[in-house]
Amino acid sequence: MAQRTNACGEVSEHHVGQKAIIKGWVQRRRDLGGLIFVDVRDRTGIVQVVFGDSAPEALAIAEKIRSEYVVEIEGEVVLRDESQINPNVKTGKIEIVASNITIINEAKTPPFAIEDKVEIGEETRLKYRYLDLRRPVMYNTFKLRSDITRSIRNFLQNEGFLEVETPILTKSTPEGARDYLVPSRVHEGEFYALPQSPQLFKQLLMVSGFERYFQIARCFRDEDLRADRQPEFTQVDIETSFMSMDEIIAMNEQLLQTVMKEVMDVEIQLPLQRMTYTEAMDRFGSDKPDVRFGLELTQLSEIVKDSSFKVFAQTVENGGEVKAINVKGASDKFTRKDIDALTEFVAIYGAKGLAWIKVTEEGFTGPIAKFFEGEIVDSLKNVLNAEPGDLLLFVADKSSVVAASLGALRMKLGKELGLIDESKFAFLWITDWPLLEYDEEAGRYSAAHHPFTRPFDEDIEKMSTDPASVRAQAYDIVLNGYELGGGSLRIYERELQEKMFEVLGFSQEEAQEQFGFLLEAFEYGVPPHGGLAFGLDRLVMLLAGRTNLRDTIAFPKTATASDLLTNAPSEVSPAQLQELKLKIDLK
Amino acid sequence: MAQRTNACGEVSEHHVGQKAIIKGWVQRRRDLGGLIFVDVRDRTGIVQVVFGDSAPEALAIAEKIRSEYVVEIEGEVVLRDESQINPNVKTGKIEIVASNITIINEAKTPPFAIEDKVEIGEETRLKYRYLDLRRPVMYNTFKLRSDITRSIRNFLQNEGFLEVETPILTKSTPEGARDYLVPSRVHEGEFYALPQSPQLFKQLLMVSGFERYFQIARCFRDEDLRADRQPEFTQVDIETSFMSMDEIIAMNEQLLQTVMKEVMDVEIQLPLQRMTYTEAMDRFGSDKPDVRFGLELTQLSEIVKDSSFKVFAQTVENGGEVKAINVKGASDKFTRKDIDALTEFVAIYGAKGLAWIKVTEEGFTGPIAKFFEGEIVDSLKNVLNAEPGDLLLFVADKSSVVAASLGALRMKLGKELGLIDESKFAFLWITDWPLLEYDEEAGRYSAAHHPFTRPFDEDIEKMSTDPASVRAQAYDIVLNGYELGGGSLRIYERELQEKMFEVLGFSQEEAQEQFGFLLEAFEYGVPPHGGLAFGLDRLVMLLAGRTNLRDTIAFPKTATASDLLTNAPSEVSPAQLQELKLKIDLK
Repeated sequence: MAQRTNACGEVSEHHVGQKAIIKGWVQRRRDLGGLIFVDVRDRTGIVQVVFGDSAPEALAIAEKIRSEYVVEIEGEVVLRDESQINPNVKTGKIEIVASNITIINEAKTPPFAIEDKVEIGEETRLKYRYLDLRRPVMYNTFKLRSDITRSIRNFLQNEGFLEVETPILTKSTPEGARDYLVPSRVHEGEFYALPQSPQLFKQLLMVSGFERYFQIARCFRDEDLRADRQPEFTQVDIETSFMSMDEIIAMNEQLLQTVMKEVMDVEIQLPLQRMTYTEAMDRFGSDKPDVRFGLELTQLSEIVKDSSFKVFAQTVENGGEVKAINVKGASDKFTRKDIDALTEFVAIYGAKGLAWIKVTEEGFTGPIAKFFEGEIVDSLKNVLNAEPGDLLLFVADKSSVVAASLGALRMKLGKELGLIDESKFAFLWITDWPLLEYDEEAGRYSAAHHPFTRPFDEDIEKMSTDPASVRAQAYDIVLNGYELGGGSLRIYERELQEKMFEVLGFSQEEAQEQFGFLLEAFEYGVPPHGGLAFGLDRLVMLLAGRTNLRDTIAFPKTATASDLLTNAPSEVSPAQLQELKLKIDLK
Repeated sequence: MAQRTNACGEVSEHHVGQKAIIKGWVQRRRDLGGLIFVDVRDRTGIVQVVFGDSAPEALAIAEKIRSEYVVEIEGEVVLRDESQINPNVKTGKIEIVASNITIINEAKTPPFAIEDKVEIGEETRLKYRYLDLRRPVMYNTFKLRSDITRSIRNFLQNEGFLEVETPILTKSTPEGARDYLVPSRVHEGEFYALPQSPQLFKQLLMVSGFERYFQIARCFRDEDLRADRQPEFTQVDIETSFMSMDEIIAMNEQLLQTVMKEVMDVEIQLPLQRMTYTEAMDRFGSDKPDVRFGLELTQLSEIVKDSSFKVFAQTVENGGEVKAINVKGASDKFTRKDIDALTEFVAIYGAKGLAWIKVTEEGFTGPIAKFFEGEIVDSLKNVLNAEPGDLLLFVADKSSVVAASLGALRMKLGKELGLIDESKFAFLWITDWPLLEYDEEAGRYSAAHHPFTRPFDEDIEKMSTDPASVRAQAYDIVLNGYELGGGSLRIYERELQEKMFEVLGFSQEEAQEQFGFLLEAFEYGVPPHGGLAFGLDRLVMLLAGRTNLRDTIAFPKTATASDLLTNAPSEVSPAQLQELKLKIDLK
């Protein structure tokens, strides 16, 4: 075989008159008045090849080729006739007049066309993943993924970060989700665990004085499959020593800015917007708000607590709250039936009802309008910026339900009413998270992030007396309403770490058994440290404009098939099974 | 805490007169005539700080600090007195006169000094891995590892390669070693396997038209631990389409040349040396010869087959061979006892004896000298380039034993006699491998590399008639006598792949069951493809000048302890165990 001279998608006017050797796949063949036109595709694009009487042998072979045949073609690049120019294709001004063709490999008719827009189920796409990945939109997603990791690595290595690989066969440590367990052969009856994150390893590397670590790390959670979750996922994992929270945030902003510029050619302005957890919940009913549009939640408890609408007044009296969103100019767009549907929607999030008011030139209308008069109407109009034509939607409930239901309603309406500028990338930091959350079921506090997160120095003394009020030096990074990732400063003193374990309900023995090595390491001169991790799969999904996380993973897991292409788990041989049984029975 | 202004190892004459804030670990403290000298270390190096009467508060704190305390120090950079200059340290011309010090964290006395040369067992080093990694030699090894991967990635991405992540939870496919198995939760009673290499995935990506793929991939083999082997290892994995073997070799040579230049500042000349498998075995008795020195094996069968030394003559008559190495100028260096020791050494490799001759001005001496006379002596002297003072060492046996024993003896003597230029990096390709090896135990042929390796086109017809003579389009890359890695062109036709499975003794059903997805994929237009993989851990080891593979892995596995630091497998909770049992019992 001869050496390829040109990539299909890169042949252009500059090559006119030159000989070209291309290699690729037949996209389609058309026979037209004694000529054969063949579109040949490789990963760079498509080029048109013409076979005619000038090369009768090549013409004869071209008659045999079909879609997805692998071919090598030699010919001369010529300009197309003016009338044949296709402005929609990069190579649309030229074509190759073939002098030679070799069929390298044949192909059966594929189960679906190799084109960006195919209307087939995901199951078929996964079964023939090698064909699905031939579609340009898929190739381009993986090209983007590769470019993103390149940009991330170059930025971090330029900043003095070392990429360090941490183990995949490791020890089970109690984290949020369930660990995958791997029976060991060397130690019969014992097990490795696959890591849910490299958290403890990266902290140990800080104890080692590595100062700046990163890894694009594979992590594992033994959880059920969902469209937005894979049991095996990739995170960009970063840890630094001697840096303050503001320094870490600033550096990660520069990282994101660099990636957006290099990969997407998008300028994002720094510093990124920051918002406390409390403010985010208050204004958007979400700890990962999409700030590309308004429709914010407005606090009305003070205004309505004395109104004659009992539902509102009593909710406030019982410690709940009343909030509303103002859907500007939407009063005519929503029928009573539409609003009933919205009421059903907020019920999913626990809201017992959705009150509404339409604003007209004459004032409020709707079933609850009559309960509001005089000053209260003025106050509501004022804080909600209510004008004629607006639709006001209210939820009265305990504050977690108000946030969840109105937050979700806000997102739903934002999308449906086209309020979101989809061309925008809105990054946002959420800060000042609570350190601990009360776990009603367990009757004790658990770590809101993880047990190594550092409280605000001034809150440390409240860890015993008022745990719920302790803030963490933690930060999440949000993009367009998705949580990309987050991080924190870490505890670096043995005593404070022990205190934390105690607050979380570990006995001294339990803490020692599970984290003894860490507590011991903390005695040998640990630097202040902190870091961040964010999900690569999700970042790729958002930047590629995809909606399915599996489209960002070359060979994703499914639950329905069992070969390398779909990576469902499979049966093992009787001998392997017997060996596993033995290992487990030895316990 | 204030922001660090300087890294310890980078403070220099250029900073004299400036204020510096450093952060790091106390390497050592010396009290001297009212002054306290403290060496402060961070990952970049060490700088000397002086505390004196000019800052009495700082002096008082400095009196309390001990080795490995974490400190923040502010001071002024000054030139040292001429007499105090230390030319052995990068920062030896300056010191910092401290005005302030903050003890950030305290430290117990570490179990060993944080210095490059520590005389302690590996077990202690691993138990306190976080302290072991503080030693500059260890940090620098991981810095080198990070630099190597950076160089590899940049080269490949500049060449249009996409980095694609392939699954770690996947399906068991029969390869050389044993798979780790992971019980699945979603499918009770079924299992994932951890990949021994991404071989099939990268081939599927070529079917997908990705054309250029690479990955720095974690791989797994459930084998016993050895000093030169870890159950979890990292390989640089590369695959391309439409390239010939020479093109693939040339591109990988450029990759190696780039890495050596960028990371080691070493120029290596291209093209690299190439040698067929047959030549390597013939001249060096090894398929991964260290070509930094001579001591080559010389074929003597033709010369000695008619000699009166029956051992030699009969060996040749019985189909064996006689070879020798000439240890130049060594006849005085080896006593009879020394040679007895060498005889014991070659016995490890199956050699029944080691014959020897010393060459003197008068001719041959030694126990077998008397058997050689006249022309035979001249011929031996001639082919062995034997001169007075040389020691000739002979092995007569079947050729595999001659190669193994003399090959090992050559390496041993090369090292002991200092014949190896340790500053050299000798890369070498080994080509023209056999496709198949006869497995005496199983009574059939097995794949010398793997079952996807492509035979030479002209040898295909011999696959049935003379399997042993079929050569593979495969190539190994060797560095200084270590196999770094290797690769091959792959089979890309369904029929040839089926033929290969048949030669390997698979029934049609077995082939279909295990590799049906691949055979099916081969029907949809597969490009010619091939690639290469090499071990990152080993490359780092050789370039860092280390001899223990574990020194290249941040948290290596051992068999003797069970925490995150050493990553031996550990016990799991009764609940986890019960769940695993259930999964297995369901089978």
